[in-house]
Amino acid sequence: MKEIEALWRDVRELSLGNSVRIEKLESPPTPLQFLRDFISPNKPCIVSNAINHWPALSSWTHDDYLTQAISSTHVSVHLTPNGRADAIVPFNNNQAESPPLQCFASAHVELMPFAEALSLITSSSSESSSNLKVVAYAQQQNDCFRSEYSELGSDCDPHIPWASEALGCLPEAVNLWIGNHHSQTSFHKDHYENLYAVISGEKHFLLLPPTDVHRLYIRNFPAAYYSYSRETKEFTLELEKPTRYVPWCSVNPYPSPESKESEMSKFPLYFNGPEPFEFTVKAGEILYLPSMWFHHVRQSPDDRGRTIAVNYWYDMQFDIKYAYFNFLQSIHCRSNLKATLHDNQCEDSDSGF
Amino acid sequence: MKEIEALWRDVRELSLGNSVRIEKLESPPTPLQFLRDFISPNKPCIVSNAINHWPALSSWTHDDYLTQAISSTHVSVHLTPNGRADAIVPFNNNQAESPPLQCFASAHVELMPFAEALSLITSSSSESSSNLKVVAYAQQQNDCFRSEYSELGSDCDPHIPWASEALGCLPEAVNLWIGNHHSQTSFHKDHYENLYAVISGEKHFLLLPPTDVHRLYIRNFPAAYYSYSRETKEFTLELEKPTRYVPWCSVNPYPSPESKESEMSKFPLYFNGPEPFEFTVKAGEILYLPSMWFHHVRQSPDDRGRTIAVNYWYDMQFDIKYAYFNFLQSIHCRSNLKATLHDNQCEDSDSGF
Repeated sequence: MKEIEALWRDVRELSLGNSVRIEKLESPPTPLQFLRDFISPNKPCIVSNAINHWPALSSWTHDDYLTQAISSTHVSVHLTPNGRADAIVPFNNNQAESPPLQCFASAHVELMPFAEALSLITSSSSESSSNLKVVAYAQQQNDCFRSEYSELGSDCDPHIPWASEALGCLPEAVNLWIGNHHSQTSFHKDHYENLYAVISGEKHFLLLPPTDVHRLYIRNFPAAYYSYSRETKEFTLELEKPTRYVPWCSVNPYPSPESKESEMSKFPLYFNGPEPFEFTVKAGEILYLPSMWFHHVRQSPDDRGRTIAVNYWYDMQFDIKYAYFNFLQSIHCRSNLKATLHDNQCEDSDSGF
Repeated sequence: MKEIEALWRDVRELSLGNSVRIEKLESPPTPLQFLRDFISPNKPCIVSNAINHWPALSSWTHDDYLTQAISSTHVSVHLTPNGRADAIVPFNNNQAESPPLQCFASAHVELMPFAEALSLITSSSSESSSNLKVVAYAQQQNDCFRSEYSELGSDCDPHIPWASEALGCLPEAVNLWIGNHHSQTSFHKDHYENLYAVISGEKHFLLLPPTDVHRLYIRNFPAAYYSYSRETKEFTLELEKPTRYVPWCSVNPYPSPESKESEMSKFPLYFNGPEPFEFTVKAGEILYLPSMWFHHVRQSPDDRGRTIAVNYWYDMQFDIKYAYFNFLQSIHCRSNLKATLHDNQCEDSDSGF
């Protein structure tokens, strides 16, 4: 409806500088500046020259250093056939007459020695998509950097000092991510303030502000999980029993050429609305990704075939902004945008996502 | 509608501590605390022991001190028959058959020697409401403390240091208010962050968060102004020509006993919804009144018959919170609250207030 479309414009004109270019700081802000200019207005930025002193920036470029440092613990690795974990994928329900069901697919998670994980990641980095057998992404969003990777702790700061002082707390979780360009993260939001430091390779982000919630077509999908057989080297996708529904964004911002037209007609609020913020975070830079912003992430590997990042999740404030977001999400969106939206495409937008 | 009522509850449960008691600080916060805990979440507080060092707290209790200090300039005084300036009052349009028109009445503003203003204020302080001829309120919201009252400048700090540092700027305007209990300020909001210091007497506030905008029944009223004749000592109320409309809150939170029932049935969202924050700010205390909060103000005089306050207006950030507010205000509110609300009572809530 026209009021929601006005909100998309308003937040861009008032707060985000009417540009899809993200603000860049050449040095770390003071805690006050960071709180006033970015956290409080819920506005992203990229900070350069904030982590130049981290040993990780040089030492983690060497595979030998990493495998020797993490020789005694196993690490969590997410395995998928195509790099799409926590994503909406078709579920083949073997009923030829019905359209394929969409489900929310989780990765097969395996604990393995780090050297094996790194070898899986770097070896598939040079494979073409069509030859892929398995995509490995070493990550676990459970504070894994301070648990599974504690031997690397002294290579990074334990927290981002100006962010901790601004937010008045230490990070709730610190996560390490090692993957290659086959892995991507589908559109979603987190209930955290996120400081995302890239150590090696590059991360490519698409961002939409929380005001644009209706443009992502959040729907409830049945939860499913991949199982991987080491023997057959094959994945099977199974629905969870009993059925559990996961509210997730429907939009794939990079549809294949053959599905592009149908995707654009299914999700006109996304494809015909304001452009998302699109930018790359390079090794040595930190992205401030504000709480509740929708983000989609792809990556490019370094010359060793991997992308490495560490992110710091800080508790967010559940304040008036959050109350407004919940209100907005509870409003049904019946847009006339390009006249391609049907009412029912917005009708369950008040899910508990 | 139910989504808007949920927002009223949500902002109280999440951000405001589910209480109508305002948070009190026993000493000034650091700039970071103030920004993080109050400005960013748009949450009011009262700060004690922040202005104990101001000479004004003792010297302004003496009328002689004030009149001698401000002997060379004239000051702006707002004159009304009843203490209600910038308020919705009935306009007698001399057409017996039609219901009385409501208008937005501005005071008669006169420049006069300060001694005369003070005498007008303190002498009417002891009058009963029924004997009142004229109510004087020395104030002008145009930075008057730094212009008309510049001789008193050294009695207060030129700004509130922890607020200035938090907000990253100096006050846009500093205003002085000298009145008595006959003057009150009707519900409205300001596009400023407001630091409100009471020097003598007490101020009684009613506050509602910006999320409650529909509960104030903002409507367009024709602008009118009082004229005061020194000869006849009578006021006349005239409509502005050409007609100008002012969007203003319709609700009088303290209706007279005889009009109470009709007011409650006209404004059920106010009278049957969540209680406003209701509290008193005493001499020596500072209220942080966040931008966009609706406030109604009454006052009690000190033993010399006057209430004195100085307020500091800082520019607000027009950020995502403001965009959300505009969106909320643009949504029509059709509530079932207590089944006493008629649709048409909400229908012009998307005025440009």
